[in-house]
Amino acid sequence: MTIFDEDTAFDRVDNDRYRARITERWNVGAVPNGGYVLSIAARAMGASFAGREPRSLNVQFLRPAQCAPVDVVVERIKEGRRFSTGSARLLQGDKEIARVLGTFAVPEPSSGPRYVQGAPPELPPLDASLHVRAPDSIAIAHRLELRYAPETGTFFDGVPSGRAEIRAWIRLDDGREPDVWSLPLFCDALPPPILNVAFYKWVPTLELSVHVRARPAPGWLRGAFVTRFAFDGLLECDGEVWDSEGKLVAQSRQLMAATE
Amino acid sequence: MTIFDEDTAFDRVDNDRYRARITERWNVGAVPNGGYVLSIAARAMGASFAGREPRSLNVQFLRPAQCAPVDVVVERIKEGRRFSTGSARLLQGDKEIARVLGTFAVPEPSSGPRYVQGAPPELPPLDASLHVRAPDSIAIAHRLELRYAPETGTFFDGVPSGRAEIRAWIRLDDGREPDVWSLPLFCDALPPPILNVAFYKWVPTLELSVHVRARPAPGWLRGAFVTRFAFDGLLECDGEVWDSEGKLVAQSRQLMAATE
Repeated sequence: MTIFDEDTAFDRVDNDRYRARITERWNVGAVPNGGYVLSIAARAMGASFAGREPRSLNVQFLRPAQCAPVDVVVERIKEGRRFSTGSARLLQGDKEIARVLGTFAVPEPSSGPRYVQGAPPELPPLDASLHVRAPDSIAIAHRLELRYAPETGTFFDGVPSGRAEIRAWIRLDDGREPDVWSLPLFCDALPPPILNVAFYKWVPTLELSVHVRARPAPGWLRGAFVTRFAFDGLLECDGEVWDSEGKLVAQSRQLMAATE
Repeated sequence: MTIFDEDTAFDRVDNDRYRARITERWNVGAVPNGGYVLSIAARAMGASFAGREPRSLNVQFLRPAQCAPVDVVVERIKEGRRFSTGSARLLQGDKEIARVLGTFAVPEPSSGPRYVQGAPPELPPLDASLHVRAPDSIAIAHRLELRYAPETGTFFDGVPSGRAEIRAWIRLDDGREPDVWSLPLFCDALPPPILNVAFYKWVPTLELSVHVRARPAPGWLRGAFVTRFAFDGLLECDGEVWDSEGKLVAQSRQLMAATE
């Protein structure tokens, strides 16, 4: 079993109630990564909506998650022919750490009109991209292989580029191929692009939305993450994840609080 | 009382339970506009989080709303020093029509670093913008004053521009000034920009996210709405709303289903 599958596995403890374990292997410092936590929730919700895959997920983070067991309590709000919607409470001890809303759909064959204004992020070939050795405290960076567009990774050397954008090649380090369940993780796996403009002590995510647009093909993903508006203590981060066949597979948006 | 205030007013019928009335005055055809429904929910949630204003709202639409009374049942999930998070169920009869998650904050004076990459949408002066007489069946278009960038409104004459973008001046028709409570409405008040590319029978919104970034100044708002990816029966629409002082006041994203 791969590390991602192991660290998002769950037992069904009751109807629509699942127990998983948040491990320290996806931490950023002392705090588990929010995208990883959302992938745990998505997989448990997917068990309640068997045969369906996530299309939109929204999570509001209530407190930092602990590296400890977590109960995911799913409410099936509506089950429709095409779309089903549910909510999930993530509980650790007597504390709720996150609340999720999600819409799931039966996978359908590709069809209908197609309009695409956009392209995979510009990145040099893998061997010309920037490989950064992350400190041990950024555990998640050791679960992933990341290769940055060099001009978007200058902040690693203490030289912010001035433009709040990060583009990178990305895949799981152990060769586990991407799928719709790991896309929430990939949507939150890179450093906050605002680090290319200003250093904050901490930019906690208040909420994260992920649209799953297609099943990713095997191979490297390409991600582009951009912050355009940071003021009055809040900033958004918009993400796009593209697969190895040049298909958009996920869009994300999050709202973060800036703490100087 | 203005029409917006009247049509989003509510009575408290119990702790955290509010009764409002969805009127037909914001319909698109037979269906009440989703942004209007979200504004009703936001106002009721704001009553449970007194003194706080919405920062992020996510609504998943479960079924078309009816023009009828609606109960908004708020759950206060977490009340923090800076941010409070709640959920709301919108009930009509024995049916839940929408589920909302929202984070609310105490308004704070402007502060901290500022990084803004973007500008209000390009629009000609008001008197050179396109004024379209909407059919009676689009009730919402009569509650609003809308003046389109002419090159983004060609689909009204049956000539799609080929680019899924709509930019417009916008305000409430009765002169009611914009505020944080009406921003959800403004984020969903224009026609779907995909109409500039392809005609669909119906593009129902599955979910809508709104980030409220600032209190709008009085006067006309400017909105820009863009769809970049439509395929396999789904499309997103990203919106920005700017106020009369050139400040970004809201960002929105929605996921829609395309029905040919």
